[in-house]
Amino acid sequence: MNSKVLAAADIGGTTIKMGLFHSSGDLIDQWEIPTDTSNDGAQVPAHLAASLSQYMDKHEIAKENVQGLGVGCPGFMDMENGVVHHAVNIGWRDFPLKQKLQDETDLPVIVDNDANVAAIGEMWKGAGNDEADCLCITLGTGVGGGVIVNNDIVHGSSGIAGEIGHVSVVRENGAPCNCGRTGCLETIASATGIVRLALDALQADETPSLLRNRDEVTSQAVFEAATKGDELAQSVVSFMSRELGHALAQIAVVLNPSVIVLGGGVSKAGATLLDPVRKAFEQSALPLVSSACEIKQAVLGNDAGIVGCAWLVREKISGN
Amino acid sequence: MNSKVLAAADIGGTTIKMGLFHSSGDLIDQWEIPTDTSNDGAQVPAHLAASLSQYMDKHEIAKENVQGLGVGCPGFMDMENGVVHHAVNIGWRDFPLKQKLQDETDLPVIVDNDANVAAIGEMWKGAGNDEADCLCITLGTGVGGGVIVNNDIVHGSSGIAGEIGHVSVVRENGAPCNCGRTGCLETIASATGIVRLALDALQADETPSLLRNRDEVTSQAVFEAATKGDELAQSVVSFMSRELGHALAQIAVVLNPSVIVLGGGVSKAGATLLDPVRKAFEQSALPLVSSACEIKQAVLGNDAGIVGCAWLVREKISGN
Repeated sequence: MNSKVLAAADIGGTTIKMGLFHSSGDLIDQWEIPTDTSNDGAQVPAHLAASLSQYMDKHEIAKENVQGLGVGCPGFMDMENGVVHHAVNIGWRDFPLKQKLQDETDLPVIVDNDANVAAIGEMWKGAGNDEADCLCITLGTGVGGGVIVNNDIVHGSSGIAGEIGHVSVVRENGAPCNCGRTGCLETIASATGIVRLALDALQADETPSLLRNRDEVTSQAVFEAATKGDELAQSVVSFMSRELGHALAQIAVVLNPSVIVLGGGVSKAGATLLDPVRKAFEQSALPLVSSACEIKQAVLGNDAGIVGCAWLVREKISGN
Repeated sequence: MNSKVLAAADIGGTTIKMGLFHSSGDLIDQWEIPTDTSNDGAQVPAHLAASLSQYMDKHEIAKENVQGLGVGCPGFMDMENGVVHHAVNIGWRDFPLKQKLQDETDLPVIVDNDANVAAIGEMWKGAGNDEADCLCITLGTGVGGGVIVNNDIVHGSSGIAGEIGHVSVVRENGAPCNCGRTGCLETIASATGIVRLALDALQADETPSLLRNRDEVTSQAVFEAATKGDELAQSVVSFMSRELGHALAQIAVVLNPSVIVLGGGVSKAGATLLDPVRKAFEQSALPLVSSACEIKQAVLGNDAGIVGCAWLVREKISGN
């Protein structure tokens, strides 16, 4: 058993979340630094390395006792070589992130995308409960996903596996999706999709609703209204949950996961969302598949990423 | 590099296909023995071991030079412990196949189900071209599948991953499926499903068709008639291919495979099937996913199983 320290950095467009972990996954310390996007993000590796060094000193952790640095990053990348092709929020284009961080920190570095490290984090220490086969779905502005199979993240042949938001749900006359097609799961199960469904329903007729005459309809308002018995809101939640549960069931008959974790802002609706999703899932999946699979709410929130980064170091960078 | 010999046995209800391979996957010899289903299949391990020993003698292969025996088997099983819960064609119930074969052969043994070993075989030495991420779909009496991710077979949390035949395709008023639900891919893309679609079309009206007044409509006859320009047959092939291509696209956006291999009797239709399936796939998948993925016809036929068994030994049983 390797007992070295695991270093983690989850890079976002505004802040970099950082952490030091014991190899068990227990947290030693976590902190944030701002992401310096000036000069197309050129200083990010140096700043990150300086901050890591400072916290290693604070905790009296020598470099020889750190197994490596795991990094999560937004954008499209070559994960094997750690080159970020394009990260628009940071300014990187064909940026050799892994090499630069290795040079700056003198540590082995492993890089993966932010959705994947968040999924791994939930799998390892969150709602995934360290299960070997699980799906993590993020229901936010869009719908993202991370797929864990045989205890490892699935990248696919060109690094774009997990595009669960672009499973086709409405095959005819679906709403336009950001991907250029129509009827994707993201057009229905994202916060944006839920608001669109509610606005469409409000415009369709004069049904009274708590959602009328608000300055702004949000997905949170839709779930709150549904909880209060608002029929229009309930019909939106019911449709969205049925389609999400159905889509998850199709993936589950192929992958037979033991857990599906729902995270992101929309998942904060809790049982108002999870109960109907579970019901639709059970109706749509093979009984042997649905009886083997729990659907749970994510628990780690924004900390999932650094936990996943620590897992990457533990599992992918050989110690000693 | 381990250069030991790999032994393989793909057990079916009528015959057991057997093989000896170099560790490269090159065949040394292959042969068949009948499956003795008398006495609830109790003698199968002893017969299999005797036949293997005979062929090892023939090729002057000493036991020390065999890395292990890989076994494919039908039915529902605990792959980790090699216990077959139920294999109706052989007569086994809670049969400790792995232990019995280890006792009889004095070799390390690994057991997996027949659909998985066939998928692994196609992945390693067939149309899968040793790609790390591929799907193998068998279009036969039913629709089965094997999922390869990160160069390994996906079993799922309870050993039933790959049930691609039970992806839901027709959500309302679908035909009944053997699984007890309706509208599964198997009701459309299996040989049985194609025949049903053709018979339904023939009964619906009086459209002239080459398929009328035959003693029996087979899926092969449907594809042959379609090739000859028969409109009714073409409409069946068109519907079936569109639904199959759409279903494959949904799986591909989640797993981003580089190859999807279509095997089984229905796949013998070749381009008549593959061309429209490819077209539907490209229309339904994210462009980045479809451009990364080839759809190909299986090439190994009934030999895929023993090749996959040899791979299991090579990858899962440590040599020396």
